[in-house]
Amino acid sequence: MSKVTVLSVDDIAFLEPYLPRSKDELPFVTLTYASSLDGMISLAPGLRTTLSGSATKSMTHYLRQYHDAILVGVGTVIADDPSLNCRYPGADFEPQPRPIVVDPRARWDYESSKLVQLSLQGKGKKPLLVHVAHGVERKNQDDGVCEHAYLPAEGEGPDSNSSSLDWMSMLMEFKRRGMDSVMIEGGATIISALLRRPELIDSVIVTLAPTWLGAGGVTVQPAERHEGGERVNAARLMGTAWRQFGDDAVLCGRLGT
Amino acid sequence: MSKVTVLSVDDIAFLEPYLPRSKDELPFVTLTYASSLDGMISLAPGLRTTLSGSATKSMTHYLRQYHDAILVGVGTVIADDPSLNCRYPGADFEPQPRPIVVDPRARWDYESSKLVQLSLQGKGKKPLLVHVAHGVERKNQDDGVCEHAYLPAEGEGPDSNSSSLDWMSMLMEFKRRGMDSVMIEGGATIISALLRRPELIDSVIVTLAPTWLGAGGVTVQPAERHEGGERVNAARLMGTAWRQFGDDAVLCGRLGT
Ligand SMILES: NC(=O)c1ccc[n+]([C@@H]2O[C@H](COP(=O)([O-])OP(=O)(O)OC[C@H]3O[C@@H](n4cnc5c(N)ncnc54)[C@H](OP(=O)(O)O)[C@@H]3O)[C@@H](O)[C@H]2O)c1
Ligand SMILES: NC(=O)c1ccc[n+]([C@@H]2O[C@H](COP(=O)([O-])OP(=O)(O)OC[C@H]3O[C@@H](n4cnc5c(N)ncnc54)[C@H](OP(=O)(O)O)[C@@H]3O)[C@@H](O)[C@H]2O)c1
Repeated sequence: MSKVTVLSVDDIAFLEPYLPRSKDELPFVTLTYASSLDGMISLAPGLRTTLSGSATKSMTHYLRQYHDAILVGVGTVIADDPSLNCRYPGADFEPQPRPIVVDPRARWDYESSKLVQLSLQGKGKKPLLVHVAHGVERKNQDDGVCEHAYLPAEGEGPDSNSSSLDWMSMLMEFKRRGMDSVMIEGGATIISALLRRPELIDSVIVTLAPTWLGAGGVTVQPAERHEGGERVNAARLMGTAWRQFGDDAVLCGRLGT
Repeated sequence: MSKVTVLSVDDIAFLEPYLPRSKDELPFVTLTYASSLDGMISLAPGLRTTLSGSATKSMTHYLRQYHDAILVGVGTVIADDPSLNCRYPGADFEPQPRPIVVDPRARWDYESSKLVQLSLQGKGKKPLLVHVAHGVERKNQDDGVCEHAYLPAEGEGPDSNSSSLDWMSMLMEFKRRGMDSVMIEGGATIISALLRRPELIDSVIVTLAPTWLGAGGVTVQPAERHEGGERVNAARLMGTAWRQFGDDAVLCGRLGT
């Protein structure tokens, strides 16, 4: 694993305008991921993929310092068993960001996961798992190794089969639990959905690696969009800034509506 | 249509290492295209797509000055009816780069195309169309508005049905006709194929626009690649340099093997 190193003063100045600021009702949300030039974030679910270099990996750890929580989907924890803690030099202090996993149907078998191990070793916060309120077996709010939040499925009554959660309700729940900033790191399903929700996303930070993963990889691809019967770009960034970090580029911006 | 403007001294210095140099056997080949963050180059074939901004459009015209030919596939001329001439300020001189269209089965109805009109008005060179030698009706080598080259289909005998042309033979034919540098600008099929042919490509220059076109667009996606039974990245750039041009970024590099 490449070492996490300190960013340069210029790298830090470049990122500064996109860091969390305080908001009233909702947490500040940063959407971030690393992509190939063909819009992919891994060769296949669970397959080790070389994408971002050491400079952009250090950037991810730098950004995590400024967030109260790091969120990923259940697809990502099952495929990658990530650590999600902040290992930026000098940041091995409390508070670590809280890992959040969106796992509506409680599919994840977390007991021996890195997230749980790191939390037990005091190297990360206790993970929060988000489930739908109906149709899953409920655990204690805190089962010793993870916390569990149960939220109603999106736009459905109590006897619904849906496992789809509403992002607005999730973000309000995080705020209620004291989290003022959330860094959403993946995976493909979650990033693709949120690129179509500019009203919820405050900053977007994308790492572009100078490689093509090739047909069959896991793609970030928002749903198509129409305006007045015409197909138009699905999403757009405003106020963009680009900077080379090692062999990669980092793109920062805000989603246009 | 946005105006083509002069690049800054720093933009020019950034591009310099990737410009054509003389080679012996084959023309110098530059592969270039503009992509969204989800790896797409248009919303749909023939659908007007806003991708690169005015700064990167100017860069394309700057680059065209340094190439003897600009090549695209028949899919691109049918969808877009492009001009492909060089409109960089001060470059309305001879020689313009020669437009080359890879149209194996002579599908393109070019009489009223922009390429032919511009050539008749002296604002562009006469287009060269590349066809397979067998199975298409032959025209004169020069029919007054276009030139036609007939090359054997890839790895096949004279009674083959294949319309696939071998890139090495095409490049040798261009060299034989005095073209020492070729800028390949698209479309998706051609770029995707050539990203897997590092031995033929000297420079790669990609414009990245800060937008996502969304599911259903036209994707640049090289075929998947395996090494020792494992899936690996399909293509990679070496010696990369990134630079912001307006809201876009330009990435330059050489394909690794
Ligand atoms: N390069 C990078 O930056 C990066 C970062 C992270 C992950 N990745 C890659 O991404 C891939 C995983 O992506 P993925 O798309 O499979 O998984 P994912 O986005 O991590 O998780 C998707 C799952 O989360 C749940 N979910 C998402 N949105 C939801 C909502 N609104 N309501 C309820 N549940 C929701 C669903 O679970 P159910 O199926 O149970 O309904 C859904 O299937 C892996 O290959 C990983 O390596 C790459
Ligand atoms: N954003 C950009 O930079 C950019 C630039 C250019 C084009 N575009 C977009 O790209 C799209 C067009 O892409 P496309 O993939 O449809 O078309 P294309 O790549 O321009 O042309 C593909 C066609 O060229 C012929 N061809 C390609 N390689 C060949 C080979 N080795 N041997 C023989 N024939 C070969 C084949 O013709 P046959 O089918 O007759 O066999 C093939 O179908 C359009 O939407 C256009 O707007 C975008």
